Amino acid sequence: MAKLSAPAVDVWVATAGADAGGHIASYLVPLSLAWIDERVVLATEADSATARNIISHGRARLGLGPTRDVVMIDAELEQVYALDQVPAGLARQYAMQADWDPRESGDRMRFLVLRPLRIQAWQEVNELPGRTLMRGGSWIT
Amino acid sequence: MAKLSAPAVDVWVATAGADAGGHIASYLVPLSLAWIDERVVLATEADSATARNIISHGRARLGLGPTRDVVMIDAELEQVYALDQVPAGLARQYAMQADWDPRESGDRMRFLVLRPLRIQAWQEVNELPGRTLMRGGSWIT
Repeated sequence: MAKLSAPAVDVWVATAGADAGGHIASYLVPLSLAWIDERVVLATEADSATARNIISHGRARLGLGPTRDVVMIDAELEQVYALDQVPAGLARQYAMQADWDPRESGDRMRFLVLRPLRIQAWQEVNELPGRTLMRGGSWIT
Repeated sequence: MAKLSAPAVDVWVATAGADAGGHIASYLVPLSLAWIDERVVLATEADSATARNIISHGRARLGLGPTRDVVMIDAELEQVYALDQVPAGLARQYAMQADWDPRESGDRMRFLVLRPLRIQAWQEVNELPGRTLMRGGSWIT
């Protein structure tokens, strides 16, 4: 929770889609994250591979580093907002936490609101999962 | 180059495959990397999602952080080695750079040798690509 709510958090965003040749391809970029009302909010251009993949397939897998103390989030797309549709409160909260304002970056920007399905905290590498904090969209207390 | 050759480097490895329901899904984990003879060498279990996706689809996209000073690598699978097949020199170099030895982690471990197709250095987030260092498998000098 502290990691997700920290200012200026970047997250690695992995998405999948079909490439130009029709083959399944993964895509990966670091993006600024905001954590608003238990949702991950990202902002990127509508025609970026990340936005296209998330909008087509509805899913993303997110990693917050450093790589030996990791939070992994599997998330599904809940809502896409163009700049003329985005709730002002959400855009303002995003700008505050992420420390940049997508509304000043051209009208191709989109806000992507992702609902976490599973959140895991790992303290080791090599695909040894640690503690599951959320499963099926519910916190495990 | 310095980043790739540093000791105990972890890399975010994004791969894609079909999930249980046949939908395209992305997978993302941090793994230890070794940089040997201009190849990225990873080691993970044969039945991990990462190994299965790379072996099925032949591709991975790798990110080395921190997220505001990033190296991105698109790579294709060149070779998979089981422990009884791996060249001793490669396994030794991997163990030296990664600071752990997959040969001591059970016989389901595989070494994945990936050939970089494109390497990019980014110094900004938000999918603004920076300098391309390698394209089509060749260094751009």
